[in-house]
Amino acid sequence: MSFKSEPIFKEIATQLTTNTKLTKNLIDKTKSVIVFNLKNKSGSKAWKLDLKNDGKLSEANESDLNNSDLVITMKDLDFKKLVEGKSNSQKLFLGGKLKIKGDVIKAANIETILKSLRPQKAKL
Amino acid sequence: MSFKSEPIFKEIATQLTTNTKLTKNLIDKTKSVIVFNLKNKSGSKAWKLDLKNDGKLSEANESDLNNSDLVITMKDLDFKKLVEGKSNSQKLFLGGKLKIKGDVIKAANIETILKSLRPQKAKL
Repeated sequence: MSFKSEPIFKEIATQLTTNTKLTKNLIDKTKSVIVFNLKNKSGSKAWKLDLKNDGKLSEANESDLNNSDLVITMKDLDFKKLVEGKSNSQKLFLGGKLKIKGDVIKAANIETILKSLRPQKAKL
Repeated sequence: MSFKSEPIFKEIATQLTTNTKLTKNLIDKTKSVIVFNLKNKSGSKAWKLDLKNDGKLSEANESDLNNSDLVITMKDLDFKKLVEGKSNSQKLFLGGKLKIKGDVIKAANIETILKSLRPQKAKL
């Protein structure tokens, strides 16, 4: 059984390769490797969105599932709905349909925000 | 028992009020109300960092704990360590010392990233 989200990832891969300005911008802002681990009735398939090093999308392997900054697990169809704006992450998250593993605080830039809000200490 | 993080929040409040350019920039990037719910031996105290509307820091009430975009719960001392760079969020999160409630996907800008990576559909 094929994944409904497959064409979306193809679009994303193309966009990353052709729109280098956007890709560079996303790497600067994100600095994370994000794995999307999707499930359908026949099994699971994962994609790795590298917005830290090479700005490329590829199929994820077992090691990526354990060593990426964020791993987002959800149903194939829910991912499609999310990207198409037919569902939203808040709803999926609260309904237990979207699970996230990793350093969400870093991803949400909380540390960066807190550090930027502390006055610079005078240098001695 | 007073909170060790109290002076940090005072610094943050002052910074938000005086450095309006930074505050505006953080609101533009964050668009979220973040509550820090800290605990020490005598109880808990929460602060609301509004990076969505007024760009101010205030003490949080019961309603803020339920209605903010993100609620981050941790020990007073762990927060202090985090801000001072003596600990990091990944370590605290994996050790179960930092809990986060809310729309982390939105906070991590995952939806925004995914949408920006889909090619614009031609307008009819």
